[in-house]
Amino acid sequence: MKMAETGTPAKDQTGREPKTARGEATRRAILGAAEKVIGRQGFNEASIGSITREAGVAQGTFYIYFSSKDEVFSELVAEMGRMLRHVISEATGGMADRLEAEREGLRAFLTFVASHPELYRIVQEAQFVDPDAYRAYFRTFAEGYRQGLAEAAEAGAIRPGDADVRAWALMGIARALGEYSVVFGDTTPIDEVVDIAHDLIVDGLRKRS
Amino acid sequence: MKMAETGTPAKDQTGREPKTARGEATRRAILGAAEKVIGRQGFNEASIGSITREAGVAQGTFYIYFSSKDEVFSELVAEMGRMLRHVISEATGGMADRLEAEREGLRAFLTFVASHPELYRIVQEAQFVDPDAYRAYFRTFAEGYRQGLAEAAEAGAIRPGDADVRAWALMGIARALGEYSVVFGDTTPIDEVVDIAHDLIVDGLRKRS
Repeated sequence: MKMAETGTPAKDQTGREPKTARGEATRRAILGAAEKVIGRQGFNEASIGSITREAGVAQGTFYIYFSSKDEVFSELVAEMGRMLRHVISEATGGMADRLEAEREGLRAFLTFVASHPELYRIVQEAQFVDPDAYRAYFRTFAEGYRQGLAEAAEAGAIRPGDADVRAWALMGIARALGEYSVVFGDTTPIDEVVDIAHDLIVDGLRKRS
Repeated sequence: MKMAETGTPAKDQTGREPKTARGEATRRAILGAAEKVIGRQGFNEASIGSITREAGVAQGTFYIYFSSKDEVFSELVAEMGRMLRHVISEATGGMADRLEAEREGLRAFLTFVASHPELYRIVQEAQFVDPDAYRAYFRTFAEGYRQGLAEAAEAGAIRPGDADVRAWALMGIARALGEYSVVFGDTTPIDEVVDIAHDLIVDGLRKRS
């Protein structure tokens, strides 16, 4: 997307396809390969050679699109953020019931993570490889979450309470349950995990008579 | 502790102090220095030379106690687990009210993390440096937590619900709030964070009339 925004590369003089479209496809292939290779091997182990091999392009092609392994890594973190925000907003957009939106947002998150375990690991590793990208990723999420909770509390849809700390706490639940599956190999079906967690989020631990 | 357990080093023939005590002090100095240096610089950047400089011992002394940087790293992760379990059990031990134990456990966790930011980062990095130590760390916590929640539910002290998923969700809250302070620099006082999170954990988001 970045390349399209800056307007480069320009039209290809020799081929029939505009270079923007072809270039974007190659760029996406490299990003997809980097997701797999870095996610599996970790940032330090993954080489640009193994990324281009996985993508099926020449090693030099990498440098047409990215200046370094660091740059492709940062782009993956940003992309994970964009994709996740997209699937969560698709899953919850227009929902009138905030508590139901919590449930569907959690389900969308865990479903996405289950199908992108490598991206999940990359975001975790970003804390050490690219702290700025890591912080931007979580700050952006937290701010959206905070805003949604503050509006819901103001509208009387949920109990009042500090939206900022709540946002971090609820993100923490989602993240831990994603990790329980991706890193710790838990096999409880997502729908079951969502129901248990949602019950806790909505009604808490306290017994009521 | 490991050295004492294996019975080495033996009594010092020349000094008045038993070598076990002096050796243990040196070992602890190296561990403390490694905590600071690795926690601040990250595992890859931190050198054994910078650890021994920080500890004020000769570089060769490191190898009397540890075979490698990897070993000292794994020991730090294990130590963080032991220390945290200790402070949490000190804070909650003998509490009859499970909900109050949740509150005090969270307060103890966040207080510990605030005073050991480097250890916190080391545990995070363990996912990439020593995945086995990382998984052991969280599995041990999760199992203790799960057991406590299961017993509380059985005793009717909290609402019934899957203790395993709940344990991971509640660990996720604690971890995220620790990170919000250590990594993201949030300055909300711990007691305030604990009250907001505990309110969510105990009563959830649902509005009641």
